[in-house]
Amino acid sequence: MFFASDNWAGAHPRISDALRHHSRGFVPSYGSSDLDHLAEKRFAEIFEHEVAVFFLPTGTAANSLALAAVHRTGGVAFAHPDAHIREDEGGAPEFLTGGVRVRPVPGPDGKIDPEALRASIAPFSPGSVNMGRASAVSLTQATEIGTVYAPDRIREIAGVCREHNLPLHMDGARFANALASLKCTAADMTWRAGVDMVSFGGTKNGCWCAEALVFFDPAKAHDMPYLRKRSGQLFSKSRFVAAQFLAYFEDNLWLELAAHANEMAQKLAIAIQHSGSSKLAWSPEANEVFAVLPKTEFRRLQKEGVRLHEWLAPVGTPTEMSDDEVLVRLVTSYATEQEDVSRFAEFLARGNGVNCTSR
Amino acid sequence: MFFASDNWAGAHPRISDALRHHSRGFVPSYGSSDLDHLAEKRFAEIFEHEVAVFFLPTGTAANSLALAAVHRTGGVAFAHPDAHIREDEGGAPEFLTGGVRVRPVPGPDGKIDPEALRASIAPFSPGSVNMGRASAVSLTQATEIGTVYAPDRIREIAGVCREHNLPLHMDGARFANALASLKCTAADMTWRAGVDMVSFGGTKNGCWCAEALVFFDPAKAHDMPYLRKRSGQLFSKSRFVAAQFLAYFEDNLWLELAAHANEMAQKLAIAIQHSGSSKLAWSPEANEVFAVLPKTEFRRLQKEGVRLHEWLAPVGTPTEMSDDEVLVRLVTSYATEQEDVSRFAEFLARGNGVNCTSR
Amino acid sequence: MFFASDNWAGAHPRISDALRHHSRGFVPSYGSSDLDHLAEKRFAEIFEHEVAVFFLPTGTAANSLALAAVHRTGGVAFAHPDAHIREDEGGAPEFLTGGVRVRPVPGPDGKIDPEALRASIAPFSPGSVNMGRASAVSLTQATEIGTVYAPDRIREIAGVCREHNLPLHMDGARFANALASLKCTAADMTWRAGVDMVSFGGTKNGCWCAEALVFFDPAKAHDMPYLRKRSGQLFSKSRFVAAQFLAYFEDNLWLELAAHANEMAQKLAIAIQHSGSSKLAWSPEANEVFAVLPKTEFRRLQKEGVRLHEWLAPVGTPTEMSDDEVLVRLVTSYATEQEDVSRFAEFLARGNGVNCTSR
Amino acid sequence: MFFASDNWAGAHPRISDALRHHSRGFVPSYGSSDLDHLAEKRFAEIFEHEVAVFFLPTGTAANSLALAAVHRTGGVAFAHPDAHIREDEGGAPEFLTGGVRVRPVPGPDGKIDPEALRASIAPFSPGSVNMGRASAVSLTQATEIGTVYAPDRIREIAGVCREHNLPLHMDGARFANALASLKCTAADMTWRAGVDMVSFGGTKNGCWCAEALVFFDPAKAHDMPYLRKRSGQLFSKSRFVAAQFLAYFEDNLWLELAAHANEMAQKLAIAIQHSGSSKLAWSPEANEVFAVLPKTEFRRLQKEGVRLHEWLAPVGTPTEMSDDEVLVRLVTSYATEQEDVSRFAEFLARGNGVNCTSR
Repeated sequence: MFFASDNWAGAHPRISDALRHHSRGFVPSYGSSDLDHLAEKRFAEIFEHEVAVFFLPTGTAANSLALAAVHRTGGVAFAHPDAHIREDEGGAPEFLTGGVRVRPVPGPDGKIDPEALRASIAPFSPGSVNMGRASAVSLTQATEIGTVYAPDRIREIAGVCREHNLPLHMDGARFANALASLKCTAADMTWRAGVDMVSFGGTKNGCWCAEALVFFDPAKAHDMPYLRKRSGQLFSKSRFVAAQFLAYFEDNLWLELAAHANEMAQKLAIAIQHSGSSKLAWSPEANEVFAVLPKTEFRRLQKEGVRLHEWLAPVGTPTEMSDDEVLVRLVTSYATEQEDVSRFAEFLARGNGVNCTSR
Repeated sequence: MFFASDNWAGAHPRISDALRHHSRGFVPSYGSSDLDHLAEKRFAEIFEHEVAVFFLPTGTAANSLALAAVHRTGGVAFAHPDAHIREDEGGAPEFLTGGVRVRPVPGPDGKIDPEALRASIAPFSPGSVNMGRASAVSLTQATEIGTVYAPDRIREIAGVCREHNLPLHMDGARFANALASLKCTAADMTWRAGVDMVSFGGTKNGCWCAEALVFFDPAKAHDMPYLRKRSGQLFSKSRFVAAQFLAYFEDNLWLELAAHANEMAQKLAIAIQHSGSSKLAWSPEANEVFAVLPKTEFRRLQKEGVRLHEWLAPVGTPTEMSDDEVLVRLVTSYATEQEDVSRFAEFLARGNGVNCTSR
Repeated sequence: MFFASDNWAGAHPRISDALRHHSRGFVPSYGSSDLDHLAEKRFAEIFEHEVAVFFLPTGTAANSLALAAVHRTGGVAFAHPDAHIREDEGGAPEFLTGGVRVRPVPGPDGKIDPEALRASIAPFSPGSVNMGRASAVSLTQATEIGTVYAPDRIREIAGVCREHNLPLHMDGARFANALASLKCTAADMTWRAGVDMVSFGGTKNGCWCAEALVFFDPAKAHDMPYLRKRSGQLFSKSRFVAAQFLAYFEDNLWLELAAHANEMAQKLAIAIQHSGSSKLAWSPEANEVFAVLPKTEFRRLQKEGVRLHEWLAPVGTPTEMSDDEVLVRLVTSYATEQEDVSRFAEFLARGNGVNCTSR
Repeated sequence: MFFASDNWAGAHPRISDALRHHSRGFVPSYGSSDLDHLAEKRFAEIFEHEVAVFFLPTGTAANSLALAAVHRTGGVAFAHPDAHIREDEGGAPEFLTGGVRVRPVPGPDGKIDPEALRASIAPFSPGSVNMGRASAVSLTQATEIGTVYAPDRIREIAGVCREHNLPLHMDGARFANALASLKCTAADMTWRAGVDMVSFGGTKNGCWCAEALVFFDPAKAHDMPYLRKRSGQLFSKSRFVAAQFLAYFEDNLWLELAAHANEMAQKLAIAIQHSGSSKLAWSPEANEVFAVLPKTEFRRLQKEGVRLHEWLAPVGTPTEMSDDEVLVRLVTSYATEQEDVSRFAEFLARGNGVNCTSR
């Protein structure tokens, strides 16, 4: 039972098949093949908008280069305290931009609060060289705690960005899961709500390695070919990413896979709620479930072979935790099997009984 | 007829099959799976030496992080004027190291001359803060003009490095082609000759995306996990690289593919030598062939659909060129078909006749 | 009446005289003259310890290169939320280190709380590549809100640093003011309490431009000559800094000037406490005074020509503020005249009366 | 007898006096005082052109930030092989720009050859991401070997820049010496000839520390305040630079000092030409003299206490040198005394006799 991360899965057979299918023949390299262009066209169709698309090896690269593309010397970006670009990129945003600082903007449910954002940006007046200048805002969709921004909320945040002429970036490592959760269009969740750039992740949702940075205003991307090369991230045989994305989008595979993962997460959530012993930390809306478990229960699950991560409680964790409890994260993916979820539910239910008796 | 670059090919079926085969099941991410460890073990076996191996998305990344791993502030690296790290990495070495400068060290046949290297390093005395300090030497194997360093020559260069306590890096984007050409062991061509780090390329020789930076002294690699992450190059599902390398090494596939590419290059060379109209710029030893063609001939070949690149004549091109001539590069790969090479030879031979008549 | 900043003052006559005195004759450049060595020797005497001293143009440079000297790729530094390196260096620490991130560690009175520091460092386990690794702790003495760390408090913080083998840096932009306030030795306030590096500022206390980065363990400084050059901060005629420092230290000029500034600050504080209208935000211990003023009073003072800065209320401002009030900062210096302080006190006292009548 | 470098001198008394004179009173910091504005106005008058002026601590900083201000990701700058930005800045240009590469453009007499420049830029076609893109051209005036570009020659170089829309930077570490040599206006030597930015050095010509980066198109400077801060080079008490420049310009002090240094250099040159034993390497046009001396003579001079540097022979040194000879550099300055030059001439003349006899 593997709930450690969605990147513990491999690749969907249709992705691997596409790689086999497109492995023959000679085509131009470095993103200039017909297959690359076809994939780019598919992105434009899916977003119902002109786009500039850049394939990249990792989500870290996509997030960091998004910030780099719009960075200004002395620039400061704003993001939720839990955001990957603050907590999990090993300093890549700071380094690849030449020194961006990422300021935390609090908000409940893992989401930036628009008023808090306005207050955070306010002190950065144009002339404040020592303080630096506001350069970008970044939100994560789905969020780091498995919640999802409604398009209206994104629009509010974009509104604050517009007041200060700041670009709005979306870290979409779990873009498909958010979209499947909202059941809106990709356009509704992005440019129609005011998003300027998306780190579009395919890897966590069934690809081997398929990440793209998408700009809705290609003029913002004019430095990207050089930024990508300068950081060692320009694939030579880039058709191998194009092939993955084409298979990913075909017949809505991506949304199906994401919907499955989300459904599995809902089932895990129900199991936790009914466990008697454990409780949800937040109400899951995508494919991540955060729960507070008794430590005894956590250890028992680990012993049973359930793979799940203990989690550092972020600021503002709503559920009260005692010293005997632990916060855990469970992540589902395209590869999560219904049977494993059922077994997990049983374990949890049983565990409760056992614990009760043993007390 | 595609001779533009070895990265115009796709992937060998056994590489794609491996990706399909290893796509199932859950394994730890970020390089910690059994498959990753297995691939690392294979590297150790192939090199007959303890190694620290880091998978990376591109050769640019491997070369740049090799320099970064051994960089010292103010550092200067030494390489042949034609070296990729000087000419073709878009500034990645300078950026990813925090400012390395790559000094050109001339030498015939695309190879660093050991005496010229000694003379280039000499002025960098320990205290010369304004000038900076020597930090690394990098050679390309096979070279940028399709020649190959003999192990003895590498040993001479390494000897100069030892005099100044400098690490020696090998850009092995075409490592397999060089090895197949020399018919020696990987150990003979690297650590036994004094090489400290290898950018080991699999992509140009039949993989989709398989590059590794190999250290023979793991102590030199202690910053690598952080350097790799900081530049956005840490794959989450890294087993997709491991799977490629395992298939690449199995039953010596990699050496077979390289030998095939080299053989095709030899046949192209013979065709050029016998063409009557064209001549070789250098005697090819791996999978790249450089030739001087009459411009009329070049245009005719392009018209016939032969894909090959016009090339900037590097300093020291030995063959005299007239204004009516052009330097071109032809690259073969695992996917180059004997039939295409034969057709190219026929075109060239025919072309000569036609040109003669039309004069 | 100038209380805007201590860098609005010029230079003490003895500093300017020293520059004139040492302007003749030829001496080696780039820090190698006898005068440079003499200044370094004086630093060693003042600190009663072997030191490596590097002259730098600005406090920003000193702070940033201190972090750079001990930085490790992916590194994270810890500082108080108000610290200059977080709020006022325009991204220099991030840039000049190649990506350090500065984590805020809260604490009352503008000082890092040792327990909060311990808790902030704890999650950075050795292997956490995504999170990065702890690399340094920095404290400001005197603090950004005009308070002063007692040596015991520094020792506690250094104790936490030792637990994680982290170097402790002191931003001593107002080193002399803190020392004059504590009436202890420079050694007591630094290496005896566990400090490893000091940004030693002379500029705010009567020099034109005299900043030095001091290491108590010269081994930690082995990259400094190159870091300083690489960031364009190696003075050619460095004796002009040496000359300033020699005059600064002579006959304890530096401590006299600082004591004067501190005394003026105390007088401002008393004036504020007795004003009836205004109140102190913190009890001043060096040469900065923070006060909460009625907005009407603030405007009146500005109109009277009193130069002082409105201040962004830092997190944890203890004094309650209403919407009609404003937080201001007043800074005294070696050049602040007793007469100006008295006039300010009168204004404030009178203001109160005037306001009362006009209501 | 000190001919080692013009930065071995101190400061002219009128510079030191100005520092004393302007040391009183309170003025705004960080470049916003009246004195700062006055100095900026003087720059505009001297150049007969609107300017944006940025004070900086070092010539390294000025050169590097000039390149940074116009840098584009992947950018390549072009300079003479001997240029300071290539040879003597310790990697600062590469680091402070985020990776610029400085390509050598040869030319006789230490000057860029316009045709060679055209040929060097030509291969950088707009789409060449791997190669990078041309971003700036930099020339040194006076050159590193003591020669001076005539305005017409600068105009030719600027013409090549215009063809590729590249900004032209002048490293004017010895700007005054070149100007005094040419006896033209500052405008003629810069913007009228097509120069866009000047690193304007005052330090080598009688100031303590006065360097400025001057832009003739303020629009090119819009990032400069942030670039300067980010690299730790924003002086707080910047009036100390303003005061130096104001004194430097007053009554043409700067040109007088430079003319004196140049005259002393001419006298040294005559002494060398008449020595019988030694010869000039280049005909000096500013305040640097390069000569080829017998090694015995060099050692004798050193023994006599003459301070001069042995010099690495740059590519294209015109004078033939035997193994018994050495290239040396002698630099004069505002502080060089006529008497020392005469003594040097005598030594040299005497030496010849002595050597002759001893043979």
